[in-house]
Amino acid sequence: MLSPLLERLIEDLQVLPGVGRKSAQRMALQLLEKRRADAVKLSETLAAAVEKMGRCEGCRTLSETPLCPVCESPRRDKSSICVVETPAEMLAVEQGTDYRGGYFVLLGRLSPLDGIGPEQLGLDLLEKRLAAGECQELILATNPTVEGEATAQFIAQMAQPHQVATSRIAYGVPVGGDLDFVDGGTLSHAFSSRQQLAN
Amino acid sequence: MLSPLLERLIEDLQVLPGVGRKSAQRMALQLLEKRRADAVKLSETLAAAVEKMGRCEGCRTLSETPLCPVCESPRRDKSSICVVETPAEMLAVEQGTDYRGGYFVLLGRLSPLDGIGPEQLGLDLLEKRLAAGECQELILATNPTVEGEATAQFIAQMAQPHQVATSRIAYGVPVGGDLDFVDGGTLSHAFSSRQQLAN
Repeated sequence: MLSPLLERLIEDLQVLPGVGRKSAQRMALQLLEKRRADAVKLSETLAAAVEKMGRCEGCRTLSETPLCPVCESPRRDKSSICVVETPAEMLAVEQGTDYRGGYFVLLGRLSPLDGIGPEQLGLDLLEKRLAAGECQELILATNPTVEGEATAQFIAQMAQPHQVATSRIAYGVPVGGDLDFVDGGTLSHAFSSRQQLAN
Repeated sequence: MLSPLLERLIEDLQVLPGVGRKSAQRMALQLLEKRRADAVKLSETLAAAVEKMGRCEGCRTLSETPLCPVCESPRRDKSSICVVETPAEMLAVEQGTDYRGGYFVLLGRLSPLDGIGPEQLGLDLLEKRLAAGECQELILATNPTVEGEATAQFIAQMAQPHQVATSRIAYGVPVGGDLDFVDGGTLSHAFSSRQQLAN
């Protein structure tokens, strides 16, 4: 027997990824018991974010301004573009590597059965950026899935006439991983992509 | 390089218990990428809950109405009161047991060093309910900590003049637990509280 509003808050908190009934309950009670000021702030920020966040006109990532901070920054190297599937993956590259060029976020991957073609991925926008001539290197960092590979292949072909150096990031055994625990697909990929050692 | 509003949302989401930077990032992106309608709903519910949730006048749990659903229900057994420390613990009793009486939520435990005395725990309100004569059984379900025990002891003494049957819930080895993994304090408690078997 819960107060209806508390029940609704617990329900609504469960839209958060990885949050089930039990965690939602703990969150709701903690917010209301101990952190009301923070709860108000969170509610306001969330409303503002949903209202103001749109797409960056340069790279299609989430942004509240027409151009995102990366596209706008004069310190980013405009001569390379890294293509990723989602804003989350853009963040992963940004936080995990020392890459300091530009990005292009597809917001999906080619999947004709689901009606996702080149237009849905904004590839006309990407082609315009390639045609503008500033970009000299295109790094394809789509996921190593069937659709991700197909998307990378498609973009590579699209880039050919524009004479940019196109590369795909390496897929293989994770650093620090144990061969014993790596799945067969990854291992066979790592074998077929083996690199000659200088000697 | 994150858009400032996204950065703020990620910061603010970290007030949720058990949510660190990485989960907050995943939550923010998922809400903005895929679940904007749900995000708006969550923001509104959160604001409404903070604004409207007060204390139940009967048992001090969180409630948006003067009396919470438990205190208001004619189907609850008004002759017993279960005393718990927090609304979360009231919920735990409510969901884990078939107890269908009333509650009293202390919102803390006696702790003179922190300035928490009987008034802060609303014990005058509890005494009024006992004096009203409707209650015949008082179940003390405070936590088995030093302060929790002291609080239970204090309330038991307070209840004495009102002639209600006062009990403390049992503490011992958890059901399904393994004696090997139970800490010494619990085990010695379980020994000293052993119950005679009928034969």
